[in-house]
Amino acid sequence: MSDEADLLQVERDARGVVTLTLNDPKRFNALGHEMLAALQQALADVARDEGARVVVLAAAGKAFCAGHNLKDMAQHPDLAWYQDLFGRCSRVMLAIHKLPVPVIARVQGMATAAGCQLVAQCDLAVASEAASFATSGIHYGLFCATPSVPLVRNVPTKRAMEMLLTGDFIDARTALEQGLVNRVVAPGLLDVEVELLVQSIVEKPRAAVAMGKALVYQQRELGLEAAYQLAGQAMACNMMDAAAQEGARAFAEKRQPAWKPG
Amino acid sequence: MSDEADLLQVERDARGVVTLTLNDPKRFNALGHEMLAALQQALADVARDEGARVVVLAAAGKAFCAGHNLKDMAQHPDLAWYQDLFGRCSRVMLAIHKLPVPVIARVQGMATAAGCQLVAQCDLAVASEAASFATSGIHYGLFCATPSVPLVRNVPTKRAMEMLLTGDFIDARTALEQGLVNRVVAPGLLDVEVELLVQSIVEKPRAAVAMGKALVYQQRELGLEAAYQLAGQAMACNMMDAAAQEGARAFAEKRQPAWKPG
Amino acid sequence: MSDEADLLQVERDARGVVTLTLNDPKRFNALGHEMLAALQQALADVARDEGARVVVLAAAGKAFCAGHNLKDMAQHPDLAWYQDLFGRCSRVMLAIHKLPVPVIARVQGMATAAGCQLVAQCDLAVASEAASFATSGIHYGLFCATPSVPLVRNVPTKRAMEMLLTGDFIDARTALEQGLVNRVVAPGLLDVEVELLVQSIVEKPRAAVAMGKALVYQQRELGLEAAYQLAGQAMACNMMDAAAQEGARAFAEKRQPAWKPG
Repeated sequence: MSDEADLLQVERDARGVVTLTLNDPKRFNALGHEMLAALQQALADVARDEGARVVVLAAAGKAFCAGHNLKDMAQHPDLAWYQDLFGRCSRVMLAIHKLPVPVIARVQGMATAAGCQLVAQCDLAVASEAASFATSGIHYGLFCATPSVPLVRNVPTKRAMEMLLTGDFIDARTALEQGLVNRVVAPGLLDVEVELLVQSIVEKPRAAVAMGKALVYQQRELGLEAAYQLAGQAMACNMMDAAAQEGARAFAEKRQPAWKPG
Repeated sequence: MSDEADLLQVERDARGVVTLTLNDPKRFNALGHEMLAALQQALADVARDEGARVVVLAAAGKAFCAGHNLKDMAQHPDLAWYQDLFGRCSRVMLAIHKLPVPVIARVQGMATAAGCQLVAQCDLAVASEAASFATSGIHYGLFCATPSVPLVRNVPTKRAMEMLLTGDFIDARTALEQGLVNRVVAPGLLDVEVELLVQSIVEKPRAAVAMGKALVYQQRELGLEAAYQLAGQAMACNMMDAAAQEGARAFAEKRQPAWKPG
Repeated sequence: MSDEADLLQVERDARGVVTLTLNDPKRFNALGHEMLAALQQALADVARDEGARVVVLAAAGKAFCAGHNLKDMAQHPDLAWYQDLFGRCSRVMLAIHKLPVPVIARVQGMATAAGCQLVAQCDLAVASEAASFATSGIHYGLFCATPSVPLVRNVPTKRAMEMLLTGDFIDARTALEQGLVNRVVAPGLLDVEVELLVQSIVEKPRAAVAMGKALVYQQRELGLEAAYQLAGQAMACNMMDAAAQEGARAFAEKRQPAWKPG
């Protein structure tokens, strides 16, 4: 639908870099039904695109994402409607998690509630110094429960609890210290910094990256011995891949792997 | 018993802010049987008090809490006695964990062994620059096993291991860097800083805070998909609460929620 | 075998401090079959040595450890061979984890791939300012899957993901900030700093340290209530040990425990 296409801009370059730009700046890129549907569809498309290598999740306007649309929510005082909404949103988050390519959040402004959750759920995140982060639902009586899921898996417990209970903003520098983002740069350098991560990832073989991303999250949920068992199997399989074989030979022969660009 | 009442001062203001003050400064507020019983009782009272909003766990004197009373322990070389003691202590820690209101540690001085555990187990912690922290039991041949439970859930693994194996003190600034406390301030500003967190919490609806605190700890023990499932349900239920409905309407109408103080 | 003895230098002093020095500097102390076998054997010897108190894992030459030998791996394009290799390596890592004495990594130089994993898997780590760390396999098409196991258990998720996806180096200072090492010092102070940790550990009773190390890792994999249950039992048993009884009496009598050196 053209409406959804407008809400979410999808660009894909020849390298397989897919940029998804939340494009509803008037509503601070809120995650209404249409935006969530557009994101789900775009992520499904990436999952099927065997040439896709990395996703950059960006946003147009001053805010990165304000989370759910409280105005819409006020108009539907209905448990089933809310369950459906949070279910849709969690499916988008899990689609980012399960995507075979890394997802980098490009955070140019405010990321609040489920917008902050989006950043936390991405594999990597680069923030502008102008960005800020809050799990602000509690200011309106709604504890950011689903945002707490990736938040406590990224930042120390007491820091997460403070954000969730107070609803207060932290600035980009604090987000960096707490582990919520990987890098903070001046607004004018945001694209340069994102591109550095993108380039680093597209230089690597797709199969190894896909296996690795899935493995990291799977093994983290296991006990140590089971984690090693799974990781050893995954790594042995990875090593049988033609790209890893070529990489190991290239290492032995002190040359660049044939698959390495440039 | 008046004796227990003296050991632990309980104050409750009109807002529902309950301040529990460890008040055995001569014994550095050690967690003997009477102190543990007084804490357990006070926490049970808070759990039943539907007007309670937040607990501040404070201490009188120079030390915050020196943990178990090693002198008493030396006089009871008896496995059942020790099992009973650590069982009582763990029940107090779990009562903090399960309490429907947040617990803020106000750490004015040394917090050692089970005293350090108390700080780690609280949901939030504010420390004076004069505070210090150690899991010091190992200096006397007793590894701080139960303190390690909340410690490894709050600070990075190798930092926790260093504290536990060396028994050495870290200062308040280091505790802040490691995630053991939320804020460090000059001794004279300790009450001001605690009050800022207290005010932030009492402004929020009680039901949302209670649901949220429980949810964060529950979902953290689950795999990611189960965590999202639980969090989505909790958030939908939270949204059906009258306070959240009013909050969402207030947001839509660009006014303060009716329940918001002042 | 003298060959393995050369690859891995084993020294043990009268205090029970065992120093294992990776000694294949020409191959950057790579973890080939012989090195892994030598490590496994040496760790098994320490596990049986009731006088052993702590292991220092050091390395000769400029690099700490370059991980697996990619040259060897290139010559064996065979799934079973890779499964066997990663299985052997994981058994060494688990032997460090299960060892009843703490293992301190003494990191004087580059620690890459399974070399970085070794550092992450140790209980404590001291690094020279000249040290650097990378999970670099992805540069050759091999995602550092097994290194990711201890990495995500030591450093924040997004930091771990960045290291694993980019393969880029972090310096010692960054490793300290992220929790990968405990301390960073000038190269000339590396032995002094390691010795401070060693001395602190050998002053403590062996049984308490052994129980404590095992307990910390076991309870971390459990839910909070089960963790407290296990920790309370472990601590009660620890308290029945003669050294803890003496420690508690010494505390009560304001003297040093009889077992305390010097």
